[in-house]
Amino acid sequence: METRTFANPAAPQWLEVPENLCALDAVLWPQGTQRSADGEITISGQSVTELVSAFGSPLYVIDEQDFRARARQFKNEFPTWGVSYASKAFLCRAVARWVKEEGLGLDVCSGNELAVALTAGFPPEKIGFHGNNKSVEELRYAIKTGVGRIIVDSFEEIERIDSLAEDTPVNVLVRVTTGIQAHTHEYISTSHEDQKFGFSIASGQAMKALLACHEKPTINLKGIHSHIGSQIFGTEAFDKAARGLIVLAWTYRSETGSELEEINLGGGYGIAYTNQDTPTPASDLHRDITKAINQARALYDLSPVKLSIEPGRAICGTPGVALYTVGTIKHLNLGNSKERTYVAVDGGMSDNIRTALYGAQYTAQLANRVSDAPPMLSRVVGKHCESGDILVHDVYLPADLRVGDILAVPGSGAYARPLSSNYNYAARPAVVAVNQDGARVIVRRETLTDLMALDVDTTR
Amino acid sequence: METRTFANPAAPQWLEVPENLCALDAVLWPQGTQRSADGEITISGQSVTELVSAFGSPLYVIDEQDFRARARQFKNEFPTWGVSYASKAFLCRAVARWVKEEGLGLDVCSGNELAVALTAGFPPEKIGFHGNNKSVEELRYAIKTGVGRIIVDSFEEIERIDSLAEDTPVNVLVRVTTGIQAHTHEYISTSHEDQKFGFSIASGQAMKALLACHEKPTINLKGIHSHIGSQIFGTEAFDKAARGLIVLAWTYRSETGSELEEINLGGGYGIAYTNQDTPTPASDLHRDITKAINQARALYDLSPVKLSIEPGRAICGTPGVALYTVGTIKHLNLGNSKERTYVAVDGGMSDNIRTALYGAQYTAQLANRVSDAPPMLSRVVGKHCESGDILVHDVYLPADLRVGDILAVPGSGAYARPLSSNYNYAARPAVVAVNQDGARVIVRRETLTDLMALDVDTTR
Repeated sequence: METRTFANPAAPQWLEVPENLCALDAVLWPQGTQRSADGEITISGQSVTELVSAFGSPLYVIDEQDFRARARQFKNEFPTWGVSYASKAFLCRAVARWVKEEGLGLDVCSGNELAVALTAGFPPEKIGFHGNNKSVEELRYAIKTGVGRIIVDSFEEIERIDSLAEDTPVNVLVRVTTGIQAHTHEYISTSHEDQKFGFSIASGQAMKALLACHEKPTINLKGIHSHIGSQIFGTEAFDKAARGLIVLAWTYRSETGSELEEINLGGGYGIAYTNQDTPTPASDLHRDITKAINQARALYDLSPVKLSIEPGRAICGTPGVALYTVGTIKHLNLGNSKERTYVAVDGGMSDNIRTALYGAQYTAQLANRVSDAPPMLSRVVGKHCESGDILVHDVYLPADLRVGDILAVPGSGAYARPLSSNYNYAARPAVVAVNQDGARVIVRRETLTDLMALDVDTTR
Repeated sequence: METRTFANPAAPQWLEVPENLCALDAVLWPQGTQRSADGEITISGQSVTELVSAFGSPLYVIDEQDFRARARQFKNEFPTWGVSYASKAFLCRAVARWVKEEGLGLDVCSGNELAVALTAGFPPEKIGFHGNNKSVEELRYAIKTGVGRIIVDSFEEIERIDSLAEDTPVNVLVRVTTGIQAHTHEYISTSHEDQKFGFSIASGQAMKALLACHEKPTINLKGIHSHIGSQIFGTEAFDKAARGLIVLAWTYRSETGSELEEINLGGGYGIAYTNQDTPTPASDLHRDITKAINQARALYDLSPVKLSIEPGRAICGTPGVALYTVGTIKHLNLGNSKERTYVAVDGGMSDNIRTALYGAQYTAQLANRVSDAPPMLSRVVGKHCESGDILVHDVYLPADLRVGDILAVPGSGAYARPLSSNYNYAARPAVVAVNQDGARVIVRRETLTDLMALDVDTTR
């Protein structure tokens, strides 16, 4: 079919014209995703039309079984490691429960995230508490509830913990910066110290912080923590960071005679947002990082340590799909044979700001039906009063796309709803979990009443 | 004092070392801002310490008199024009009332913004309704409540209005793209058609839309609307756009024999976020744009038209100040004599994402006291688990800054609170209005209970 060879000069180089605009690339979608006999996308057996009809549009859908399977997979592939879910990627009580039931730990980075986890019955001893500027109230709460680890990030915090600690010493990890900073396929190992997090190994601050913790009877120093970036592919950057941590552990032993028990390598494991992304299998991560750690450990004659990781996006990103309804379609002729179709949907930067914030690339698919119409270079935009309100920068959609069609955006499970705003007084979408038993709301849709509840001004 | 000549090679070129770190540059602060006898910043007589003590931290403070004065100034400087406040910059019921009392119109860009305005008693006939993808429900609501103008943005919308209109024809403006796109001191006049908004003049779509409206008895076509960008300085881009609109109006008359009554030039008038920004006085805007319009009108022999503008940020941006409390201070040595101090406060990208989203430049000042300590190159960061969580990229703060100090960030009245999120379950700050009578909460602080109200999952 000749139209398949259509390539619009307005398209970016990397964007391939798909063979079949309605085929589902397994790497992008929840495991329970299919096209039904009548062509609809179904997730765990729930069709997008039924979901939108029952719960409204836009809608965030999470495949519970897929979420659980990915959590389990990390646990299985890292059998001797600690695996904690990074709740900043997406947290609600249902998610906390799933994580608990799959036997993972949980990371939180605010007192409120901790409260949500505890409300869901998450065992505090399996919770790690992160943050570069935890307040005294947050630390008091964390200590009182007995969180498993506080990941300390500043000298002020060491003093705060010291003054808040009760009878039992507080278990802490010290967050350090290794000099490695990674993002997607690239990593850099210079200028990486210029960030708000952690204590730099190179400057000696990390050792100073370790010694400060070592000396406090109120603090039970368990080990060190490193987080090198987000949406990382490959294992090289993790290997480098791991080696840096081993050197630090060795220096610490040289200074104190004590060994650190734990090394936590943080998160950052990438997922596929488009077919250009090639996530590293958990088994590869485990094999390569373990090897790097063991080699370095042998070289420095260090005892085995407890290793941990904190995947967030890699567990919740792909199980989440955003559904939007098409409202307007504009075909623009940009000159020089460049054409672009703006497809406006009923959500936008209020529910997913990642495209505008990070230049993130997503893809989208016609979800309520199949079509063999020719590919049409499209930009999926939202309904907000801002030209940067873009959800999917470049994607081929079928040329017969029409108002009322449902678009599905895969990879929407992480950092979309958590970063959502009420820009233009948008009420944020519901989050629905689907599993073998059906669909249920786990975060309900906001209403104007919710938004107005904060507007307390009285007429004067 | 030698320390004043201190220049840190980590500082950007444009950043001057201030003579006095605690002096208040009038262009940046609300008119009612002073340093009290004991050195505190006061806004409309309210000291930052008292405000934070009474209403918590972080806190958004709006100087009501300054907001009203800026609204009034636009009205006075554009006496024969329509002046509407763009509510997307910041809206709550108190603000809607101030705008109404100062005699301006109001722009909204969602059904919910319209609802807030109407709840505040704003007269619907003075409201303009924007948006590239208004839903059928939103349009029905706008028509039923009798909004003054609907700014139509797509052919689908023209059909929707046609099918929804009741006895009275609906007053509309047609949103067009002139080919001018402006931002700060720059404007470009090519490649600007590549956006989701409006109908392009160059492609003929704008004329097609005008004719479509002209032909519908359900639609009362009042004129055209153009919005060329945000945070614009100077008048040249507006002049160019105005001339383009006159040509369109002339073409329309040639085709139909009718004259368009109104031209709306939208918003985009810049404010000062740092002392590098030089806002264009409203009087200059009025003089230059009027001149451009009148020259073009004379050339094309067009009757006088009703002109309108829609300032948002230029009214609410400077009256708003964000107050934060310092939680941790980290001095980093970056090598090559580069030093940077990370000052972490109790807010961040959850309450103001503009720095991360647009690379916006802000400044900050020690607010609860004065200091003659040497300048210290600082980066003001938030408490979120993300390295891009930066509020003020580069600013000199006094080297004796300490935990517990209050920092004030001017220019926080626009697009901060409206784009705020609950990232990391952050509860969003209160907004307090200060005036001669004191301080009062107009938007209350969120609580964990508010956040959890959406979490409806029940244990399974």
